[in-house]
Amino acid sequence: MKPDASLVKNFLLALQRAIVAQLEALDGGSAFRIDEWRRPTGGGGKTALIEGGALFERGGVAFSHVMGERMPPSATAHRPELAGAKWEAMGVSLVMHPENPYCPTAHMNVRFFIAYPETGEPVWWFGGGMDLTPYYGFEEDARHFHRVCRTALAPFGGVEYPRYKAWCDEYFFLKHRNEARGVGGIFFDDLNEGGFERCFALMRSVGEAFTTAYAPLLERRRTRPWGERERDFQCYRRGRYVEFNLVWDRGTLFGLQSGGRTESILMSLPPLVKWRYDWQPESGSAEARLYEVFLKPRDWVNEA
Amino acid sequence: MKPDASLVKNFLLALQRAIVAQLEALDGGSAFRIDEWRRPTGGGGKTALIEGGALFERGGVAFSHVMGERMPPSATAHRPELAGAKWEAMGVSLVMHPENPYCPTAHMNVRFFIAYPETGEPVWWFGGGMDLTPYYGFEEDARHFHRVCRTALAPFGGVEYPRYKAWCDEYFFLKHRNEARGVGGIFFDDLNEGGFERCFALMRSVGEAFTTAYAPLLERRRTRPWGERERDFQCYRRGRYVEFNLVWDRGTLFGLQSGGRTESILMSLPPLVKWRYDWQPESGSAEARLYEVFLKPRDWVNEA
Repeated sequence: MKPDASLVKNFLLALQRAIVAQLEALDGGSAFRIDEWRRPTGGGGKTALIEGGALFERGGVAFSHVMGERMPPSATAHRPELAGAKWEAMGVSLVMHPENPYCPTAHMNVRFFIAYPETGEPVWWFGGGMDLTPYYGFEEDARHFHRVCRTALAPFGGVEYPRYKAWCDEYFFLKHRNEARGVGGIFFDDLNEGGFERCFALMRSVGEAFTTAYAPLLERRRTRPWGERERDFQCYRRGRYVEFNLVWDRGTLFGLQSGGRTESILMSLPPLVKWRYDWQPESGSAEARLYEVFLKPRDWVNEA
Repeated sequence: MKPDASLVKNFLLALQRAIVAQLEALDGGSAFRIDEWRRPTGGGGKTALIEGGALFERGGVAFSHVMGERMPPSATAHRPELAGAKWEAMGVSLVMHPENPYCPTAHMNVRFFIAYPETGEPVWWFGGGMDLTPYYGFEEDARHFHRVCRTALAPFGGVEYPRYKAWCDEYFFLKHRNEARGVGGIFFDDLNEGGFERCFALMRSVGEAFTTAYAPLLERRRTRPWGERERDFQCYRRGRYVEFNLVWDRGTLFGLQSGGRTESILMSLPPLVKWRYDWQPESGSAEARLYEVFLKPRDWVNEA
């Protein structure tokens, strides 16, 4: 089967609609607003945004489809044969920030890239993944999230889950804090092994697994009472999310530095964030437990 | 006069003490805490931090002195003769975030760098500057701040202020927003023209002018009543400060990516920050005036 960008695009738009409908039903309070935009140089997107919901304080599910006449040098460093080729990129990217500090933040992204060199066949690859960032950790939640990730990848061979799990732990890591962003999940890039059909199916499987991985955790935790202390810790920890996305996330930085659509890129940032100097959780506290038990890479699916 | 790093270091430590004493007196509520730290690889610093003050919600005045056995490649791209040289860097850096939204945020930095190539004389340069970021702009405040900057540079020739003012406008610019960070000020780097004595004097003059430039604005605005609306706008605009520092500021990025001391580097981040999607101020409002009148480079000293 030949790579077919329009098939991928139709899937991504349908995935966005499905996820927005599911998250909206889950929220129960607010609707997503849909913001369509076009780039003067071609391409555009559709950003679905929720703010001040009953469950979600802020979150977005963004589809984008952009193209260019010449691959940027940064993208062809290890693919010199594509230097100067026309290219096309599309994806769905989402980040959800619930208000209740017991509900974790989640991120999911699936993307497809295709380059058209002057001579020869188009070169394409898929990328994606999802990861979970709790403020107060629950081992059963981390296990559930990882099990759904493993199940989504199981039809494609036994090695994908452990590889993509390790890749996620490595990618979502704040080197300047020596701290994981959360409990991880899966991450993959440059995927074209086994042909278009297999890779596209793998990407679909990841995208479609997201709400199965995330929604049950929200259902379990959303009614748990919280107070000033938990809210304060959540706002403080959200600072790490900002630091990761603005300092280390290649997609965010490339987007901001290359003239991407700022508001759609930065929909990942939390609504309310606190920084304070050299703060440490009290030894033995629930907050300390997050660092000790959850912010260290762990083999969640094979435990207990 | 030969470059003398210990002279510069003594000046910087005295400058930090003087500024901390002045800002503490101005705050009137809280004292700065002093946090001394050492790098396992040599060097260290002294971070003075205030949080929850009567005037300052968060702010820091940091001295650091670090050194290395080999200049990093990123620092020698346009100075190939220094590749691999031993080096030493020292500076004072400060950012103050007042609580009252009518009081502007301010930043100042003065720094000295010296490299010791295997053969030949040491190579050194100074850098620094200060800039002002209002939430609600006052033209007289911007003029005062710029006039003090001009006066501080006047003894060193007539061209410095306009050059460093333009350099500041260019440096403190959020390209992904097409927006200035604030009303600017002055910025300079790679300064070694005219010899060590002149350059050191220029740097001292800038550092010593800071409280003259900033304190009167706080005195004028600190008692002005504010409410939820002003606070909300301040927290929203502080998001731009975070975006600039984490995405564009070379010093911050270099520090975080090269193993600098994270808490001292990120003392620049505001205590409470909000992000929301595609927000625009109401036409004709005080908030809209900030964008229209103050966030565009302007010749503040020669007006009116």
